[in-house]
Amino acid sequence: MKKICVFTSGGDSPGMNAGIRAVVRYGRAKGLEVIGVFRGYDGLINGKLKDFNERSVSNIIQQGGTILKTARCAEFRTEQGVKKAAETLTKNNIEAVIAIGGDGTFKGLLALKKYWQGQIIGVPGTIDNDLYGTDYTIGFDTAVNTALEAIDKIRDTANAHERCFIVEVMGRHAGFLAIAAGIAGGVEEILVPETKTDIKAIAQRLKENEEKGKQSNIIIVAEGDDAGNAFEISEKLKKVNDIDYKISILGYIQRGGAPTANDRILASKLGAYAVDLYLAGESGVMAGETKGELCAVSLEDAVNKKKDIDKNLLNIGCFLSQ
Amino acid sequence: MKKICVFTSGGDSPGMNAGIRAVVRYGRAKGLEVIGVFRGYDGLINGKLKDFNERSVSNIIQQGGTILKTARCAEFRTEQGVKKAAETLTKNNIEAVIAIGGDGTFKGLLALKKYWQGQIIGVPGTIDNDLYGTDYTIGFDTAVNTALEAIDKIRDTANAHERCFIVEVMGRHAGFLAIAAGIAGGVEEILVPETKTDIKAIAQRLKENEEKGKQSNIIIVAEGDDAGNAFEISEKLKKVNDIDYKISILGYIQRGGAPTANDRILASKLGAYAVDLYLAGESGVMAGETKGELCAVSLEDAVNKKKDIDKNLLNIGCFLSQ
Amino acid sequence: MKKICVFTSGGDSPGMNAGIRAVVRYGRAKGLEVIGVFRGYDGLINGKLKDFNERSVSNIIQQGGTILKTARCAEFRTEQGVKKAAETLTKNNIEAVIAIGGDGTFKGLLALKKYWQGQIIGVPGTIDNDLYGTDYTIGFDTAVNTALEAIDKIRDTANAHERCFIVEVMGRHAGFLAIAAGIAGGVEEILVPETKTDIKAIAQRLKENEEKGKQSNIIIVAEGDDAGNAFEISEKLKKVNDIDYKISILGYIQRGGAPTANDRILASKLGAYAVDLYLAGESGVMAGETKGELCAVSLEDAVNKKKDIDKNLLNIGCFLSQ
Amino acid sequence: MKKICVFTSGGDSPGMNAGIRAVVRYGRAKGLEVIGVFRGYDGLINGKLKDFNERSVSNIIQQGGTILKTARCAEFRTEQGVKKAAETLTKNNIEAVIAIGGDGTFKGLLALKKYWQGQIIGVPGTIDNDLYGTDYTIGFDTAVNTALEAIDKIRDTANAHERCFIVEVMGRHAGFLAIAAGIAGGVEEILVPETKTDIKAIAQRLKENEEKGKQSNIIIVAEGDDAGNAFEISEKLKKVNDIDYKISILGYIQRGGAPTANDRILASKLGAYAVDLYLAGESGVMAGETKGELCAVSLEDAVNKKKDIDKNLLNIGCFLSQ
Repeated sequence: MKKICVFTSGGDSPGMNAGIRAVVRYGRAKGLEVIGVFRGYDGLINGKLKDFNERSVSNIIQQGGTILKTARCAEFRTEQGVKKAAETLTKNNIEAVIAIGGDGTFKGLLALKKYWQGQIIGVPGTIDNDLYGTDYTIGFDTAVNTALEAIDKIRDTANAHERCFIVEVMGRHAGFLAIAAGIAGGVEEILVPETKTDIKAIAQRLKENEEKGKQSNIIIVAEGDDAGNAFEISEKLKKVNDIDYKISILGYIQRGGAPTANDRILASKLGAYAVDLYLAGESGVMAGETKGELCAVSLEDAVNKKKDIDKNLLNIGCFLSQ
Repeated sequence: MKKICVFTSGGDSPGMNAGIRAVVRYGRAKGLEVIGVFRGYDGLINGKLKDFNERSVSNIIQQGGTILKTARCAEFRTEQGVKKAAETLTKNNIEAVIAIGGDGTFKGLLALKKYWQGQIIGVPGTIDNDLYGTDYTIGFDTAVNTALEAIDKIRDTANAHERCFIVEVMGRHAGFLAIAAGIAGGVEEILVPETKTDIKAIAQRLKENEEKGKQSNIIIVAEGDDAGNAFEISEKLKKVNDIDYKISILGYIQRGGAPTANDRILASKLGAYAVDLYLAGESGVMAGETKGELCAVSLEDAVNKKKDIDKNLLNIGCFLSQ
Repeated sequence: MKKICVFTSGGDSPGMNAGIRAVVRYGRAKGLEVIGVFRGYDGLINGKLKDFNERSVSNIIQQGGTILKTARCAEFRTEQGVKKAAETLTKNNIEAVIAIGGDGTFKGLLALKKYWQGQIIGVPGTIDNDLYGTDYTIGFDTAVNTALEAIDKIRDTANAHERCFIVEVMGRHAGFLAIAAGIAGGVEEILVPETKTDIKAIAQRLKENEEKGKQSNIIIVAEGDDAGNAFEISEKLKKVNDIDYKISILGYIQRGGAPTANDRILASKLGAYAVDLYLAGESGVMAGETKGELCAVSLEDAVNKKKDIDKNLLNIGCFLSQ
Repeated sequence: MKKICVFTSGGDSPGMNAGIRAVVRYGRAKGLEVIGVFRGYDGLINGKLKDFNERSVSNIIQQGGTILKTARCAEFRTEQGVKKAAETLTKNNIEAVIAIGGDGTFKGLLALKKYWQGQIIGVPGTIDNDLYGTDYTIGFDTAVNTALEAIDKIRDTANAHERCFIVEVMGRHAGFLAIAAGIAGGVEEILVPETKTDIKAIAQRLKENEEKGKQSNIIIVAEGDDAGNAFEISEKLKKVNDIDYKISILGYIQRGGAPTANDRILASKLGAYAVDLYLAGESGVMAGETKGELCAVSLEDAVNKKKDIDKNLLNIGCFLSQ
């Protein structure tokens, strides 16, 4: 029986367990042996492997986090570390690695490729949605809805106090989460790394909103915005319009929780598709979905090419927050 | 100033309010006067109109239901009723009607078109997702997640008691909701109107699941399945394999609740797009989104053409529920 | 080391896992060996026992259902069955049984007492809250909030359609759940087994509500109401005031889900207290909490005495639903 | 017709709207005219009053925030401000003021009492639960469950990464929220202002937890803990045991959201009871509930006396987090 392995790596994202389940069950349905690797690259290096069957992944589709654990692994950033990982795979007769994670994870796969001849397939799992070659990454939809629930709650308080709130969401390099949660939350301003933030214009609009009879203002900021984080932006705005801003940093709650339907479905599809890619002899690719169609994109492109934000949506958001 | 109106009709769906907000705010940003019509076609007939401004739709993006109300209207099914509705529009100098609803709503628009010269635009709002020409309808994503939460809860009890549950979801003619909630819920069987239900095969698999060590079994059934509703299916299965089935009919809870991020974003996009279609001189079309692109489809096609379920997804589901 | 065992029995309720965790960890902290019994009385009869330690109950406090499973057990209703269960306990040198469940479970404990000399302690776990001697049972608070979320969703649709809904909640003999969810949901009528249902008066008030400008009406019914279930009540009302009623049976979703804070805290307290009762030499009692104080009540009283509903609260509800 | 007024003041808390609804509807059912005052003491000073009827409070029981708005009011801290507020009340023939809020709100009532002869009644509405004379304040239960949901999510990530998290919850002077959310969340350490925090002992236990096989550690900290806020505690711990801590400040999300069943019921009871206290001629009291019984406590006691945390519960928590 042919043998493949699956692991998760980097920051956890909701739906990773659904992805693991899909790889295991679909792989076994296709006659493969499926090995679970614990703690990502660290587990590859140190041989933390376990033979998985259908029952190993029972009742996990609804769980956040990852039953395979995840870890940052300094040793894997060394040549020696990568070689050790390659040895583990060779020694255990593993033919393919399916890794669920974000760009750090995929860079790891590309490093591994240099020292190991097996097939290498990535599955996009990150709440940031910042991978090229797939419209959505596993975990993004859940994170957006978690941020949205928080914004809905903050709106209650913002309305009650008629105050201005700045809500910081995750996104060091990408504004996907901020844009989606911001449009859905009906917020007044959305600040993302991809667009230049104009503090004076924002301060001006916030003042005007008062005259329009708006009862509250919420600004959503991706943590990596060019104008700074929520605290810095608050200081800058205050200097212009002398309003006091309340700040909320959503932080780690965006990573956990039971995955939404979309994330479970996407993880199920991409996990199965990753196995199909293996069976088709593919390697060095990420299993993605674009415009509703499954697709394989090279790991290099997934990591290096820039996925564009939806500027049209941002634009509509400006009209709708009037 | 040019004048358009907006209403909701048919069964309510989460995100309708976000759609109303988008039509009103985007319309006014484009220099239009926007009239809200209460209670759907009944309000057209009886002139229940109200001038809406930006503040009229404050703080509704997160609310389920519809602030414009909705109703079934027997009078509008008569020629006289349609004429009265047309008169209201003419009398009030309304140039376009934007209606948010499902196929009944769109058939109403087509009827209206015969007696009124203005522009007629539909926005797909129904939890059933059964309209051709748009990948998703407003409300579908929320309904799927509501059904999913229910399934997650039922799974707790099914596991604790090691019992078999049949969960009936909405869908008189379409299985979209059952399929999405079923795949995401990791259920053992998904029964939809679009595929022939084989009671004997299901009964057989349920028995086998026991041998596999599965701790519980959940069958999801769209209410319009060819083998009957949940109670009927339970009877049929019992005759074959003599297992007792527990039944849960999710019912109306699937219609309400705060909309998910996706439904609010889709409603925002389609509401604004409907206004753009009006401005572009279009009529007799539904504002939809296919493969990530906004698109206009004729109301006739939206209503009459059959949207296919994702059989590939159903197929993956079979592998993953092993 | 002294040995006790813990099991769950009857219908599952959210918080049972938190109760198991409390018995195991608190018991072991007090120097006891703690055995988990699977599938309730069936597990006692058939010796499905497992030695539990602190890690056996890791990460379960937030899970609905019960990791120990639960089952109805026909054999335990026979003298022979009870004797077998007693033998299992004696053979394994178990000194005390801690059972989490409702009145059926406690009756089982009383039966066991006749054939076994060990200590017998009950912990109230049922969503019905119908046990005398404790203000709240484990699972009640979660079930109320689950029913409440459903009512909030139904209210959206009821408002949108300006219709009258009848929502049936669990409660074959007790109206605690209906009353709490009804008051919290702001429903118009609350029908429970403990009070006589006056169909004519209700029909009359529903008509009056229309004149008052109420946009919707929701009637909550405990399944065991004297006037019948939701369908029967709907028929009776319709005969009087000729309104069409929409019906929603909440069913099994009320049993599952992550427990609320209150249920987890109550389960933690009562689980630990049950161990303390064992250590104090008590037997034949239920660990309860009344007016904020832990208390032990005889199992006979817990089962046989009638816990009163809060008629004052029902009364306030009448004023507040105007 | 006799006239009373109701307002909310200080930080908003979930359930305030349910409290307003109860005062208005119960008051009117008892034959009173009920005036809503907007923006707390600011509205009293500036005469922002509105006559409320049953329909004014329709469909608000499920909403977070407060439809009457709330604000901090600097002017009311001056003698002149208080006199203006008193004049507004006298001029409008208002016989009683019912104020929903926390200790700042009640101190305001006591100030008002010096310059106005009417009846003054407080209703406890704060997520901190730090008012003497009532077991629970309106909003506390919701805030606990909001914090708990956040902890459940963070637990997913903590488990996946096998890391130690510090979660800071609200509570400048009181640990009620931290204790309840901490016990329910099954956290490893609970740090509150009422007990001395021993950094060395905690650092030691965290190290031991690793050896026990615990997969994650969560420390919950009330913002006013004697050892500092989450960041300061993280620094102190790190100096002792050289572990990296992840930090999450829950912040304002704890204030908003749809209230839980308990908060809606408590608000309904206390709102109605406040009206009853007025009708009974009481003044200078807070409407509270202790050990399941409604009770009136003097506003001085409510504000000045210290409500004790449940040290027994904290103690059980230590055993259960093993």
